[in-house]
Amino acid sequence: MRYLLLVSHGSRREASNDEVRQLALKMNAMNHDFDKIACAFLELAEPLIPEGIRQAIAQGADEVVVLPYFLSAGRHVAKDVPAEVELVQKERPDKKITIAPYLGSATSIASILLEQAES
Amino acid sequence: MRYLLLVSHGSRREASNDEVRQLALKMNAMNHDFDKIACAFLELAEPLIPEGIRQAIAQGADEVVVLPYFLSAGRHVAKDVPAEVELVQKERPDKKITIAPYLGSATSIASILLEQAES
Repeated sequence: MRYLLLVSHGSRREASNDEVRQLALKMNAMNHDFDKIACAFLELAEPLIPEGIRQAIAQGADEVVVLPYFLSAGRHVAKDVPAEVELVQKERPDKKITIAPYLGSATSIASILLEQAES
Repeated sequence: MRYLLLVSHGSRREASNDEVRQLALKMNAMNHDFDKIACAFLELAEPLIPEGIRQAIAQGADEVVVLPYFLSAGRHVAKDVPAEVELVQKERPDKKITIAPYLGSATSIASILLEQAES
């Protein structure tokens, strides 16, 4: 079973966390190659990343792809998210846990921004 | 003359600000309906939003579209960016300055995330 975990920073503003939860639900309802898509947060909101990965494994995931919902390759993307992932990877060396490229690195971001600008 | 200003939060990490500057350059080199595309920052990096808009006007812009490079509709998108824009709109009521929908509200974000997850 292959699981996708959309990972966001997390906010004190619960409406922002709910935007991410809604996005994960929307992605889960779309056409894709994962058995399930859910979300988790680096801090300030539930579930935190390790808990999100543990829940995926508890639901039967053999593989978890962690997808950073971040715009820039700052400390969170470079160090904090990998550290949280590593925590669970050490507990469960039998599971494949990988980190996909962060959103901001997508080459299509520029086209989407141009579409937004014209909308 | 129609000018697009990509507006990001700004970071203490200059490499993150440079990512935004590179993105604006990339967008400017693409096919679009603007005469010029540049970027500005809410804080921590140059040019700040009012200065970015003033520079656009100094270069001949009659219309400036401000595009928030933000993922969630938090305080920055709801209040801070509009307040900076309003500041220059009051100085220059003869110019049309509008704010486009923020990046996170783009419906195509979900598809891009799915592409990133498979990459």
